[in-house]
This record gives sequence, structure tokens and C-alpha cells, in this order.
Amino acid sequence: MKITKAVITAAGRSQRTLPLQTLIDRDGAAKSVLRIIVEEVLSAGIEEICVVVCPGDETAYAQTVGEHAGRLTFVRQTGPAGYAHAIRCAQDFVSRQPFLHLVGDHLYVSRGQKSCAQQLVEVAEAEACAVSAVQASRESLLPYYGTVGGRRVPGRQDLYIVEDVIEKPTPTEAEQRLLVPGLRAGHYLCFFGMHVLTPTAMELLSARIAATGDGSGAAFSQSLADLARRERYLALERPWWRHDVGVKYGLLIAQMALALNGKDRDEVLAQLLELLAIRELQRPER
Amino acid sequence: MKITKAVITAAGRSQRTLPLQTLIDRDGAAKSVLRIIVEEVLSAGIEEICVVVCPGDETAYAQTVGEHAGRLTFVRQTGPAGYAHAIRCAQDFVSRQPFLHLVGDHLYVSRGQKSCAQQLVEVAEAEACAVSAVQASRESLLPYYGTVGGRRVPGRQDLYIVEDVIEKPTPTEAEQRLLVPGLRAGHYLCFFGMHVLTPTAMELLSARIAATGDGSGAAFSQSLADLARRERYLALERPWWRHDVGVKYGLLIAQMALALNGKDRDEVLAQLLELLAIRELQRPER
Repeated sequence: MKITKAVITAAGRSQRTLPLQTLIDRDGAAKSVLRIIVEEVLSAGIEEICVVVCPGDETAYAQTVGEHAGRLTFVRQTGPAGYAHAIRCAQDFVSRQPFLHLVGDHLYVSRGQKSCAQQLVEVAEAEACAVSAVQASRESLLPYYGTVGGRRVPGRQDLYIVEDVIEKPTPTEAEQRLLVPGLRAGHYLCFFGMHVLTPTAMELLSARIAATGDGSGAAFSQSLADLARRERYLALERPWWRHDVGVKYGLLIAQMALALNGKDRDEVLAQLLELLAIRELQRPER
Repeated sequence: MKITKAVITAAGRSQRTLPLQTLIDRDGAAKSVLRIIVEEVLSAGIEEICVVVCPGDETAYAQTVGEHAGRLTFVRQTGPAGYAHAIRCAQDFVSRQPFLHLVGDHLYVSRGQKSCAQQLVEVAEAEACAVSAVQASRESLLPYYGTVGGRRVPGRQDLYIVEDVIEKPTPTEAEQRLLVPGLRAGHYLCFFGMHVLTPTAMELLSARIAATGDGSGAAFSQSLADLARRERYLALERPWWRHDVGVKYGLLIAQMALALNGKDRDEVLAQLLELLAIRELQRPER
């Protein structure tokens, strides 16, 4: 299985300027959030990228990715119909081929040289099936994520066969259906926001939306539960970091994370310590 | 003297998206850089604000300041003719009245409740003359700033009578013309990027540009040297911070500074320490 296409969802109504925000990437260059995500995708050998957008954002988004603009196809999501619906908007673009999917408001940071997307695509191509990146997360985080249950692939520490998926499960649901042997007590495998999906996954997603009219994030998780019953579907757990830049202080924390993982690490730490030292020695008079 | 107008220069060709970048302000609200600067200005009792922009940026800038848009008048600088020229573009707007001037790529952080702009305007109104905010800066910083020479106003620790101004002086020029009695050795009074200017200042600036064709930052400093010979002109030195958000990591450091001075101080420090602790305990394998 060769993966040459990617779908980035960036049509969230409340966050239309988010992909345009500027950060300094690990290489020390100033880039928009969208450009950093596009370069993450390209590092995985992807050739064509579909960006699902609010109508009207195409020009600004294309300008912000510089020389990569030629790789981008924009597809409009014309109403706030949800996350699953946004992915289905790319159905014609993916055209019954497997594809990498990332969300447009997260930045992904791996350790070492290979990007998260590159590692995920390598595993998906080697295993020739859908693979979702996951993180072992404390039970208290379940209200925020799609969560998978399953069992380890024999002989692998980082790979799981997915048997069930529930969107934002309750602790009881999680304990009954999503316990994974071998994980630390009270921990579950939550979605990381990056997936390789197969034509069957897109077909199940599309069928579910057509049948129920529900295009939400829950519908996405439900269609992946359907997928686990139809074909081999894996979860990859690696010690990566993901940063949601859409939350309060998300850009700040993401910028710090990029800087700490990049070439300017020492310079930024020094500036930050200087700032902290000066402020703390000279506390504001309030 | 009552100051009701302000001029923000934001026409730098290379930084047209800078005023649109989003930061969390001290009050915990997400705002564009331009909006934070506009609110700084409004806190000083200013009623009308002129923003000098590159042609075409008016709509995006107006959208980004929300309900303050009605206070803004946009004036276009149609070519990259320099900083002094940008200020002169606002000549008709200020219409022979004193005005507050800030640059659109700096954020200003005071200690305590009163903003920098509010404090500066109060001093200018009380003294009824032009006043530039300055910082006592090490000699090594002279290559970056306009710098003033003069002497303390008797009985005041924070106020100086300006006698000379040089743009980016050499150490020799500074030692010969800009030494200020009472400052620490090797320190000079460098511009902070915020001024209250008088009608005479605008007139001298305009005359200098007309005579020399030079609209650069140096012409701005030279016209303020002219001003010091024509009328009383003061420099105000307070323990404020200014952050140039146009430099590399400028947004990161400015965001940290806002957070450390604001209501989310403890939350941000905790997030940052968690990030640092986790990264440092789990160093990347390289």
C-alpha cells in the first residue's frame, strides 16, 4: 500500500485565522501554522494535499504555504456540519485511495529526526491497513478524545489491533469496552489527531453520515468502530507530542515545544530564563 | 494641553500580517497584536486613531480590532519611503494638534495598573510639551535605537530635558553628545517606541523630509533634534518593558511577558514548567 494523498481539515468556523498564525518552526524559520502542518505531511512522502476550508479562506491559506501551494487542493465545507462531514467533503479528492488525515489546529512533534506523519505512514504502508496514531492517556482525559480498545500486536510494544472505538467515552464505557491489556492502570488509548485511512473507512464514514444525518466527531469515531469490524485496523502508540493550537495559550505552548525541539533551543531557553529572572526579581507593584 | 489623537505606524512591507497575529492579553482574552496596541492607546483617553498602512490592509486590520474599528482612520503609505515618511502621512489627520505615536510592531508593558500610554500622556498633558518615552540602555544597544542626550529635570528622577537626538549613534558620538549626568556609566537614554509629539514636531518632520527627500528613521530622529532646539521637549524614563514582536521569537517572548503580567500568570507558569520538566526528563533521542 502506497500513500500519496492527505486530507487536512481546517474548516472550523471559530478558528479561521488559526492556520495563518505565525510560529518559528524547529528549523528556525518563521512559518504559518498551516505551512508547518503541510510540511509535516510532505515529510511523509505525500504528493497531493486536500485542505477542507470555510468558503473564502482559499486565497489566504494558499498564500501562507509559499512554494507548497501547488500541492494543495481546496475543498469547501459550506456549513458547520461537523468533523466527520468535513472529512467526507474530501471523498472525491481521495478517490478510493488510502490517505493520511491530520487536523488543521494541531501541531505534531516527534522525537528524533523522523516526523510523526512519516512514522505513521511507514507503519501503514508496511501493514497495508488503516492505522490511527494514539496516546496512552489518563482516564481524566477521556471526555476530550475518541478512544480505542483492542490488544497488542504480538511482539510489538507500540502497535495495537483496534477492536472498538468510542467518542469521548464515560469512565464506565471505557472500563467495560476499551481496556487494553498491558497498559498502565487507569490509562486508555486516545486519538492523537492523525490517521491513515483506507477506502473502506471513507465508505463507512460516508454511509454512516448518509444514514444518520450526523456528521459530528462522534460519527467519525463510530465509523472507525465499524471499520474495526470490517478489516484489520491498527493503532500506533509512539512517544510523540501533539499541541492543540486552538485552545487558550495553545500557540504559546506549541511555540515553546517547537523551540525546545529545534535548533534554537538554547537561545530560546536563555531568553525565557532572562525574562523570568527579570520579572521575578522586579515584581510589578500592584 | 489635551491629547485626543494617536498615530500608529503599521506599513512595514515585510510584516503586513504582524498586526493580525493573535496573542492572549493580560486580561486573558485572545486579541490581535493591533487590537492590543489600539487598547493601549484608548487607555490613555485617546479618541481618534490613525493607522498608517500598506494599501490593501485596511479591511483585515479593521476586522481585527472588533468594536474599536469606529475609532480608526486608515491612511495609506503608498511606497516604502521610511518611518519618518509614514508618520508624515498622518499630517492631515493630526491637523496641527498634539498626538500620541506608537509603532505597530511593539507591545508595551507597564508595571501596575496604568498603561505606558496613559502615563506618558499624563506627563505630556501636565508638562504641555512633546515627551518621548525612553529606556536607560547599555551602550551595546546604541546600534538599534534613536538616542537622546540631555539633563534631568530638577527634582525629578524620571524626567529629562532633551538637548540632542541621534539615530543609532556610534559609541564615540554618544559619549561626546549624549551623556546624561546621573545615569549609570555606559548607559544612554534610548527611544522606547512611544512619543507624544506637538504640531511643531510634525512641522519640522515635514520640512526636513521636503528639504532632504529622506523619510527614514534617521530623519525622524533628526527632526526631534531640531525640535529640542525649538521648544521644550522632554524624555520620560519609567521601568516599563517593550517587546518588538517583529523579531524572531518576538511573539513568543511578548506572549510570555503579557502572561506574566496578567491574570493567567500562575496557569501559564505551571503549563510552562510542566512542558520544560517533561521535555528535560525525556530528552529527544538524536
